[in-house]
Amino acid sequence: MSSTNDDESSPIWMATVSAPTNIACIKYWGKKDAKWNTPTNDSVSVTLDQKDLRAVTTAAASIKFEKDRLWLNGEEEVGASDSKRFRACVDGVKALAADPSKWKDLKIHVSSYNTFPTAAGLASSAAGYAALVAALAELMSAKETYQGQLTTIARQGSGSACRSLYGGFVAWKAGSAEVSTEGGTPWADSMAVQIADENHWPELRAVIMVVSDEKKDTSSTAGMSTSVATSTLLQHRIAKVVPERMASIEKAFLEKDFESFGELTMKDSNQFHSVCADTYPPIFYMNDVSRTIVRIVHAYNKWAGETRVAYTYDAGPNAVLYTLEKYVVEVGALMAHYFPSPATATTAAAADGYFNDSTFANDVTAFTLNSELLAATNKTGRVPNAGDVKKIYHTKSGPGPQVLSNEKDGNLDLKTGLNTYINTPK
Amino acid sequence: MSSTNDDESSPIWMATVSAPTNIACIKYWGKKDAKWNTPTNDSVSVTLDQKDLRAVTTAAASIKFEKDRLWLNGEEEVGASDSKRFRACVDGVKALAADPSKWKDLKIHVSSYNTFPTAAGLASSAAGYAALVAALAELMSAKETYQGQLTTIARQGSGSACRSLYGGFVAWKAGSAEVSTEGGTPWADSMAVQIADENHWPELRAVIMVVSDEKKDTSSTAGMSTSVATSTLLQHRIAKVVPERMASIEKAFLEKDFESFGELTMKDSNQFHSVCADTYPPIFYMNDVSRTIVRIVHAYNKWAGETRVAYTYDAGPNAVLYTLEKYVVEVGALMAHYFPSPATATTAAAADGYFNDSTFANDVTAFTLNSELLAATNKTGRVPNAGDVKKIYHTKSGPGPQVLSNEKDGNLDLKTGLNTYINTPK
Repeated sequence: MSSTNDDESSPIWMATVSAPTNIACIKYWGKKDAKWNTPTNDSVSVTLDQKDLRAVTTAAASIKFEKDRLWLNGEEEVGASDSKRFRACVDGVKALAADPSKWKDLKIHVSSYNTFPTAAGLASSAAGYAALVAALAELMSAKETYQGQLTTIARQGSGSACRSLYGGFVAWKAGSAEVSTEGGTPWADSMAVQIADENHWPELRAVIMVVSDEKKDTSSTAGMSTSVATSTLLQHRIAKVVPERMASIEKAFLEKDFESFGELTMKDSNQFHSVCADTYPPIFYMNDVSRTIVRIVHAYNKWAGETRVAYTYDAGPNAVLYTLEKYVVEVGALMAHYFPSPATATTAAAADGYFNDSTFANDVTAFTLNSELLAATNKTGRVPNAGDVKKIYHTKSGPGPQVLSNEKDGNLDLKTGLNTYINTPK
Repeated sequence: MSSTNDDESSPIWMATVSAPTNIACIKYWGKKDAKWNTPTNDSVSVTLDQKDLRAVTTAAASIKFEKDRLWLNGEEEVGASDSKRFRACVDGVKALAADPSKWKDLKIHVSSYNTFPTAAGLASSAAGYAALVAALAELMSAKETYQGQLTTIARQGSGSACRSLYGGFVAWKAGSAEVSTEGGTPWADSMAVQIADENHWPELRAVIMVVSDEKKDTSSTAGMSTSVATSTLLQHRIAKVVPERMASIEKAFLEKDFESFGELTMKDSNQFHSVCADTYPPIFYMNDVSRTIVRIVHAYNKWAGETRVAYTYDAGPNAVLYTLEKYVVEVGALMAHYFPSPATATTAAAADGYFNDSTFANDVTAFTLNSELLAATNKTGRVPNAGDVKKIYHTKSGPGPQVLSNEKDGNLDLKTGLNTYINTPK
């Protein structure tokens, strides 16, 4: 539902949504069709809870607006509304509007912000473009002509954004150029499909270790283009490895088989970074801190005699650790032991904002790690320093985009349609 | 030729050789036949000059010796003479002795040392086993029944050791189980072949950045075994990628085409580490310092508009940079700029032993780096610190093992056959 101001002659229609990030277990790396932004292989991800990690986007339309405008994290992105990505989303949703003639000639204002660092490998663009498409769809009461059509639009904004339009465990099917919509758009089946919703596996938890909140130096788009052109291993991954892993991990998720789910997730993260290393020039997203976390995870699982935690790394050094509710405090305590808060240099970090979740921080601080576990993990490479990890998020799977109907949630002024969001660094 | 003491009734026969390291351009990673230590794919390497990087090994035989004994870097390795590797070398060379009956029942003493850090990814085992086989062959005047047979013995000590038995540019052909010696030993053609000797490309230079002199945490043998068992990309590399690269790099070396030689060397180093990352659990040999060097190399070549320097990394974080005589001072100066001596924290490092070669150190110190080159390379990741690199070697290609006929070169006492080498940390 969209809200309006009270200027009856030239109303501003407005809608605000929040959308989640998602973190892939089987990774997307490589475009098949650059124009339509389709992938070389299927991928699948967990949609994360929006409590602390979300994009919030307000979209507005009015006859009063002279041109499309976009504000990101409080700053206007001049010219961004002409970008192919933005246009694909705006024009794509306009075509599905319940009353297309109403919106056809109206200009669009969009303001969006993330509650977490942008472009640091935490899927900010996935959340952002999912929120954009969801906000536009809400604004214009868009109707899909087939299930998943909106995800094909979000995919043209940012590939993995399509998966953020559903909650739970979500696949992005690569699709084929031959499948077209009635309007003649190809790749109509390169879209997200929900494998299971966020209530299917309520015990699943995610612990995110923010190793860096700096922007990465190779964008995903540039990186995957170079990988497709130069990696001699990528095509083998696409043709032989991914199809098998997709089938296995969907089964593991549906059966809540953490052992298989975790192992496949780790192996596919490793292979994604392996392909990056095989790219020429090579691309490095993980750093020594990332690798120390990998070593600790394997030493912990080996000590436990089972896979209790699984790492995955996107295009950045941050670790996302999937685990189960029954182990999450132990995982948090183990991580806080090796990566204490930079502010206090201790694990007693509840008060200083090192953890997003103060209840979890207290549980972690109170937890006594097994001495044999510490012995098993303390030979895992370089000695970590307070400051190697900036922040630890404790979260779980969550639903897709949410409409925010409260006026104060919006980022655009109801009377002027101009940005009201002010970025305050966290 | 072997020397003897003057005890005519029970002489000690003795020979001492030095042998070089070699650094692969197309990497060996994966065993085909563990028993015979044959590789999954061909590989090729540059044999380095022995001036500063060599293994020196004395082998002795006497009726007085009660058992085979081995000293490594001054310490006796108790039980090592029973190891499969050591036995393959000793028994293999004994079978080729000019007078096998003379040596059949004599026990062997061996003392070996390296002039550089052991097991830190600088091919210490290649030099060591090459020196062992060469010393035994010299001691017993071994005769090959076909060219390369001694390399098949060294290969059973440590795979890449076979390549250190020749100078210059040396391939290790994977061979096949079906090819046997007259004595019935399979894999008789899994051996080293010299592609070009050390005089073919006299302008080629190597700059070795010692990032760590600590022992690596995953041995090559254990690492490649895990890679063969778990990497889904390794088999594709073996079947499809390596054969093409072998042909191309041999051509490039013979034509002294540094552009192609360098690019292939870098790509294959990247792919080796890519396969390590695709191993489960993943194996990491490179660290953030290694990766900073990679970034600097690519930025330098991009600035130059040609490949002036090429990195390669073995199973450790140290970089070996191949370049040409005309660029080597520039390369050294660029590296010393970003990685100053830990002792002086400056590039004026001639006096403190940071460089192995004082003439080179003086040339590097006197060299003025182009300001645009510095601008082009100064955005290549984390800021390097003095101490990130421990030492810089300047070297070139060199010949195979050398017999040391001077008595003082030996590591065993001529009268007792006991170790005389004392390790003095460098």
